[in-house]
Amino acid sequence: MSYVERLMKTLNEEMDYIAENGKLELLMTPGFVDKRLYAIYMTETYHYTKHNARNQAIVATRQEDMNPGYMRFCLNHAREEVGHELMALKDIQKLGFDVSEQTLPRPLVSTQALIAYLYYISHNENPVGRLGYSFWAERVYQFIRPLLGLMETGLKIPKSAMTFFNEHSDIDAKHAEEVDEAISRYVTNEEDYKIVEEIMLNSLKLTFEMTNEVIAEFQKVKDSKETRYYYL
Amino acid sequence: MSYVERLMKTLNEEMDYIAENGKLELLMTPGFVDKRLYAIYMTETYHYTKHNARNQAIVATRQEDMNPGYMRFCLNHAREEVGHELMALKDIQKLGFDVSEQTLPRPLVSTQALIAYLYYISHNENPVGRLGYSFWAERVYQFIRPLLGLMETGLKIPKSAMTFFNEHSDIDAKHAEEVDEAISRYVTNEEDYKIVEEIMLNSLKLTFEMTNEVIAEFQKVKDSKETRYYYL
Amino acid sequence: MSYVERLMKTLNEEMDYIAENGKLELLMTPGFVDKRLYAIYMTETYHYTKHNARNQAIVATRQEDMNPGYMRFCLNHAREEVGHELMALKDIQKLGFDVSEQTLPRPLVSTQALIAYLYYISHNENPVGRLGYSFWAERVYQFIRPLLGLMETGLKIPKSAMTFFNEHSDIDAKHAEEVDEAISRYVTNEEDYKIVEEIMLNSLKLTFEMTNEVIAEFQKVKDSKETRYYYL
Amino acid sequence: MSYVERLMKTLNEEMDYIAENGKLELLMTPGFVDKRLYAIYMTETYHYTKHNARNQAIVATRQEDMNPGYMRFCLNHAREEVGHELMALKDIQKLGFDVSEQTLPRPLVSTQALIAYLYYISHNENPVGRLGYSFWAERVYQFIRPLLGLMETGLKIPKSAMTFFNEHSDIDAKHAEEVDEAISRYVTNEEDYKIVEEIMLNSLKLTFEMTNEVIAEFQKVKDSKETRYYYL
Repeated sequence: MSYVERLMKTLNEEMDYIAENGKLELLMTPGFVDKRLYAIYMTETYHYTKHNARNQAIVATRQEDMNPGYMRFCLNHAREEVGHELMALKDIQKLGFDVSEQTLPRPLVSTQALIAYLYYISHNENPVGRLGYSFWAERVYQFIRPLLGLMETGLKIPKSAMTFFNEHSDIDAKHAEEVDEAISRYVTNEEDYKIVEEIMLNSLKLTFEMTNEVIAEFQKVKDSKETRYYYL
Repeated sequence: MSYVERLMKTLNEEMDYIAENGKLELLMTPGFVDKRLYAIYMTETYHYTKHNARNQAIVATRQEDMNPGYMRFCLNHAREEVGHELMALKDIQKLGFDVSEQTLPRPLVSTQALIAYLYYISHNENPVGRLGYSFWAERVYQFIRPLLGLMETGLKIPKSAMTFFNEHSDIDAKHAEEVDEAISRYVTNEEDYKIVEEIMLNSLKLTFEMTNEVIAEFQKVKDSKETRYYYL
Repeated sequence: MSYVERLMKTLNEEMDYIAENGKLELLMTPGFVDKRLYAIYMTETYHYTKHNARNQAIVATRQEDMNPGYMRFCLNHAREEVGHELMALKDIQKLGFDVSEQTLPRPLVSTQALIAYLYYISHNENPVGRLGYSFWAERVYQFIRPLLGLMETGLKIPKSAMTFFNEHSDIDAKHAEEVDEAISRYVTNEEDYKIVEEIMLNSLKLTFEMTNEVIAEFQKVKDSKETRYYYL
Repeated sequence: MSYVERLMKTLNEEMDYIAENGKLELLMTPGFVDKRLYAIYMTETYHYTKHNARNQAIVATRQEDMNPGYMRFCLNHAREEVGHELMALKDIQKLGFDVSEQTLPRPLVSTQALIAYLYYISHNENPVGRLGYSFWAERVYQFIRPLLGLMETGLKIPKSAMTFFNEHSDIDAKHAEEVDEAISRYVTNEEDYKIVEEIMLNSLKLTFEMTNEVIAEFQKVKDSKETRYYYL
């Protein structure tokens, strides 16, 4: 099996595990079909997305010798991520919520952990490692497409408030291909592979934690408890 | 109420919440009185402790103007944390497990998230913020003393394999006082306070996540599943 | 005057000053028409060029809010700089000198100062500041074209050993235009301008220091003194 | 010869070279016995001194495994450097010049190069390397004592405006001893030694460049040209 195939196998297993053990099915239940849940999720998405171009670029600033092709991949990829957080913000605003970059609540602890982790590995781990995050992040939309459909039909969220997801679904195939190609080229031994796989699983778990905390926050909103999402 | 008193109140509430909702009582049940659990916990402790002096020192390297007294506090405190991870390692070895700095398994994802978070806030948040981590970390031993007693009597772990905990219990009172004094001096407005409180709660939650993952890993060991703790 | 025009005026004045006060005319004198001088210069060029993509990318990793267009400019520009140091190395090899990335001597103190300065300002100064370096670096080739002509005719250096210079002359016009456009867009007030101008002058002075040290090292080679350039 | 002895030999040779080739004797000539020159020098001293605790602490934040004793040395040494720039500022103020931390002019290019270099090597070179800077910086006062005497008698600068120098002369002997001891302990092979020696020479040269630029700036002041030292 190629490294890409091995990653795919591990990713599918993890996704199955998450599907079985996560609270995601909760999202399909009546009380959770709520645009406030979507707004909370987009708020946290705004936060971590804001750092994706930055932590991707950091890999290309490492002092060690790196394959020039890999450096170019990182910088190119970083450039394409610039400003994507603004789509998430616009989607929240389109739903009618009155927030701006200046007034958004601070990120949840799980969102901060995800952001911090991606900086940490970009600075400190084997430079090819971050490909493990891109590997799943660029193809996650195929896993969540049923959810997107639900949101559109169930939540009646208009397409104009789903630019973040739709945009990413569109550039999905292209990016996923580029990441696969980068893995084929720059992951050259078992040691490289191991860290790519670890970072894939770890960043997926931390994102899953974030999703769980988003759901818990929404539960608080439903229970009329105080939350940071003052604008809901 | 002073800032220290407010932090204390918030910390106690959080600790009560954790006591009620965590799996810590699990630790008191027969099957969990096991030195392998202790070794797993010490392995993760080794990992995050190794970074404590470093992330504490980073605060004093920030480019903005800082109170010289606070810089000295950070550097002094960092110096006192140097090498403490070696106590955790020695404790594992004293239990009879054959590991070294070179052969310890990599940290769990929750441990990495804690480490990464502390670097991130030390680099990027209000410099006084890290006091929030010290505030609870320096007095946590009073909360876990019952657990330590249990380990000594129940697990029959000799004092010689508990240097990390015993040492930290001893320097506890002194450090906690210094941290309180630093908070009194350098946390000078509500904005400062808010970030100190946030970092206290966030770092506590991430440590709690780590404890939960440690317990889950131990459960795997008990179930004879494969884990990274090959030396148990 | 626009900011670009003001920078151009200041740059021309500084270049006149350097032309009058520098030792560059020395380069036109018989004893200095020597391919060993060129090899020393290319060695130092290799070193600082290796960091240009990295320090340019660092600007786009800054935590503060930045104009997304400027972030994209930085990442795009960084990507185009990747691997250019290899041209300098190849040019040295083409002259017949037996060196590789692993065996090149360490950079001179003035080269290290230039490298360190560019990292420092990329990390710490106003993010638009680095445009001041690009402003002169992208158009320097028009100033040194007479020198290039001299090298080709006087030193009989073949075109195949001048890829670094020729390549940069070619992409010159395009890059200089892009930098001018970036200055027009992202330098929006006098405070921005002042730091761009300072970094233009400082990086030019440090490069000039490097040139002087290169000449001093070549003088040592001519005097048969020991130097780090063992391969000459 | 021990590593300390070898460094001492190299330092003495370099100091002789500087004494012969520098413009320092200029300082002894009538027109240069001027408290404005002292104020310019102290301004630049303020700037680089402000970063000494920070770049020293950075060494102890490096991710690689380091000798715990060396980490403690770095943090201890950093702590002792905190706030020393305030002595330089106070000395300028004591001379009657109306400046504050907020209104001091920006550092000269040579001062910035020195600052940037020390950060760069603290982040990137062999961690023991920075001992090369401490080695000469902690004992420089014995070299400049004649100059200090001249300032006191010739410039009639009161002791109250020489706290920076006097303080550093006093802690000199103690620090130099500690640095020698650190070199004996933590510089353990030729590779370590080479980088310590390089950083000693490079930081000395960059400081010498700064002194030269200070003198050139003072010459401008004497010639009634415009300078950044508006308060003179």
